Amino acid sequence: MYRRLHKVSGRPFVASLLRETLPRRVYNMVKAFQDYYPDQFAYCYGCGRLNEHGLQIKSYWQGDESTCTFTPRPYHIAIPGYVYGGLIASLIDCHATGTAAAAAYRAEGRPMDSQPALRFLTASLHVDYLKPTPLGVLLELRARVQEIKGRKVVVAVDLSAQGQVTARGQVVCVQIPEGMVLENAG
Amino acid sequence: MYRRLHKVSGRPFVASLLRETLPRRVYNMVKAFQDYYPDQFAYCYGCGRLNEHGLQIKSYWQGDESTCTFTPRPYHIAIPGYVYGGLIASLIDCHATGTAAAAAYRAEGRPMDSQPALRFLTASLHVDYLKPTPLGVLLELRARVQEIKGRKVVVAVDLSAQGQVTARGQVVCVQIPEGMVLENAG
Repeated sequence: MYRRLHKVSGRPFVASLLRETLPRRVYNMVKAFQDYYPDQFAYCYGCGRLNEHGLQIKSYWQGDESTCTFTPRPYHIAIPGYVYGGLIASLIDCHATGTAAAAAYRAEGRPMDSQPALRFLTASLHVDYLKPTPLGVLLELRARVQEIKGRKVVVAVDLSAQGQVTARGQVVCVQIPEGMVLENAG
Repeated sequence: MYRRLHKVSGRPFVASLLRETLPRRVYNMVKAFQDYYPDQFAYCYGCGRLNEHGLQIKSYWQGDESTCTFTPRPYHIAIPGYVYGGLIASLIDCHATGTAAAAAYRAEGRPMDSQPALRFLTASLHVDYLKPTPLGVLLELRARVQEIKGRKVVVAVDLSAQGQVTARGQVVCVQIPEGMVLENAG
């Protein structure tokens, strides 16, 4: 049941339906990392729930790994039949920064809706494209935290299609410095 | 004049106007690397001139470096006021693969509209985000070929905003294997 809800909740409509109709305690069980971001951090093109043009990815713990699923749109093409590498980089990037935030809360032993809010940006992104990723199927991302040290979290991500790992990423995430969000922007 | 045309031709409408109205010999002087891609390679979300949903970036030689300019859309946000890192990775990726193709033609001493067509995919992508990239201004990318060996071209890319380098990438590009384009896809 959890697994099923978590899969469909990647779609904005279903996510909002769940948020509005489920009792708070039950909804908290299916909330994604990104659903906890404070509003001013929720406009990211890759993972912001408030960016209506964006990808709106959703990430969840599954034991010590975090997972995320995404079906590229028909126009996310590299060459016909295969997924655009920039989209793959974007998915890996945002799934990693979300995982970094969730891991930082875990490391502090507190829930993601507690204060102060923790949010991470990317310091460096590396992606190895191991084989072409077919377009038209669900992609699955699995991330593992490799290191947490101070404000830095290093996350490794595998991206799979039809059970085969097609891309592998490593993302160095750093906690957003205070005062970096422009008050009058966005 | 060349510089001015090259800047505006990043916009699809102007590019198509130029293509349709300029004499062939003059148009060839302002054609971008991506304008030479054969149709089946021109659907890439980042750089395909035939992908109407895509970024449609345009790259040009400027001496031994290649250049590309792009103004992110208002929704290409990381946090309000700053450009989304996945977009930056996408721009670096596609400018690098375009540069790799152009460099391979140069190395063979033949023009980009000669046969066989050369087109490159990304084997690995590395991006260091040096500082936040402001949203709402023109971004400039400059690429240098670091290595050409067999079917592999390594390209380094700097991305700047308002004269400051904000991100630095290295892309390992490989020539697309024959037979990789699915005949019935796309």
